[in-house]
Amino acid sequence: MDPDTVIAAVSIFTAGITIAIGSVGPALGEGRALAQALSAIAQQPDEASTITRTLFVGLAMVESTAIYCFVISMILIFANPFWNHFLQATGS
Amino acid sequence: MDPDTVIAAVSIFTAGITIAIGSVGPALGEGRALAQALSAIAQQPDEASTITRTLFVGLAMVESTAIYCFVISMILIFANPFWNHFLQATGS
Amino acid sequence: MDPDTVIAAVSIFTAGITIAIGSVGPALGEGRALAQALSAIAQQPDEASTITRTLFVGLAMVESTAIYCFVISMILIFANPFWNHFLQATGS
Amino acid sequence: MDPDTVIAAVSIFTAGITIAIGSVGPALGEGRALAQALSAIAQQPDEASTITRTLFVGLAMVESTAIYCFVISMILIFANPFWNHFLQATGS
Amino acid sequence: MDPDTVIAAVSIFTAGITIAIGSVGPALGEGRALAQALSAIAQQPDEASTITRTLFVGLAMVESTAIYCFVISMILIFANPFWNHFLQATGS
Repeated sequence: MDPDTVIAAVSIFTAGITIAIGSVGPALGEGRALAQALSAIAQQPDEASTITRTLFVGLAMVESTAIYCFVISMILIFANPFWNHFLQATGS
Repeated sequence: MDPDTVIAAVSIFTAGITIAIGSVGPALGEGRALAQALSAIAQQPDEASTITRTLFVGLAMVESTAIYCFVISMILIFANPFWNHFLQATGS
Repeated sequence: MDPDTVIAAVSIFTAGITIAIGSVGPALGEGRALAQALSAIAQQPDEASTITRTLFVGLAMVESTAIYCFVISMILIFANPFWNHFLQATGS
Repeated sequence: MDPDTVIAAVSIFTAGITIAIGSVGPALGEGRALAQALSAIAQQPDEASTITRTLFVGLAMVESTAIYCFVISMILIFANPFWNHFLQATGS
Repeated sequence: MDPDTVIAAVSIFTAGITIAIGSVGPALGEGRALAQALSAIAQQPDEASTITRTLFVGLAMVESTAIYCFVISMILIFANPFWNHFLQATGS
């Protein structure tokens, strides 16, 4: 296999595996936080607005780890500097 | 194997594995949150509307990690820039 | 092996593995939510209608991750753009 | 090995593995839900009809993920478009 | 190895592995449900008939996932379209 093919194949595979593995943790973590938030609202209904606000700010931070993976995946697919280098090197 | 074949094979395999692995975490996380929500409604029926609203907004955030994987899978199948490059390179 | 064979073999294998792995998470998550729902109905029978409604809307969201995997599997089998390309390339 | 043999072997193996792995999750999830349902009936016998109805509708949704795997397996054995293509290509 | 041998070997191996892996989940799930049923009858003897009826209908649904695996195994052994094709192709 020539360099172009290797780089492209590795980029594709890595882009997929990155977001796949990277989404497991955030999803489980958000599910756990959400579950606890609902339990907390049931236990202390008067604090529902505070609990909900804290939940969503927290979920946004957990979500950010999934977004990092998503960004890396998109970069590997659409703005991969290694790929651009090999494209220029082979003059195509 | 020529480059076209390698890239196509890797793209197909990665597209499938990405959504397969990427759906495990969100599904388990949503299942956990949903389970807790039902328990919370049973414990505090008066807060059912608040719990339900919080649940669905939260589920939407967990679901987003599965959607990231789905988007990457679809990109790898239908809008793969590496594949497009090799198509142009071989002039077919 | 010629390109056609490789692409077909990879597509078949990936289609199966995708839905196989992708069905484990949703099934376990739905089972957990369903178990909790039944427990909640037993605990608070008066809220059975609210619990049941929340359960089914939530199950539909969990189910969606399995449906993503199913869609990718079907695309890989019946609407695979890589396969269509190789069919046209070999003129058959 | 010629293309026909490879495709047939991969199809057979994938069809089996798909339903094998795909049946583990639904079976465990349904077993858990069923166990909780029986416990719930023992706890609240008056709600047996509501619990049973919710259980069976929910089991049907969990079962659907196993059915997805079964459908893909049957398609790979009896309606495999890749196999049909190779049959026509070799004129047999 | 000639094609016939490969197909036969793969079919035999897959038929065994399919029902082997596919029986783990249902067996564990049914065992759990059954254990809970016995516990529930001991807790609420008056509801024994309702519990038993729900148990058997539920077990039938869990069993269905094992039956899917069994059907695929039997098809691979006795009604394997790939095997029939190779038998006709070699004229034996």
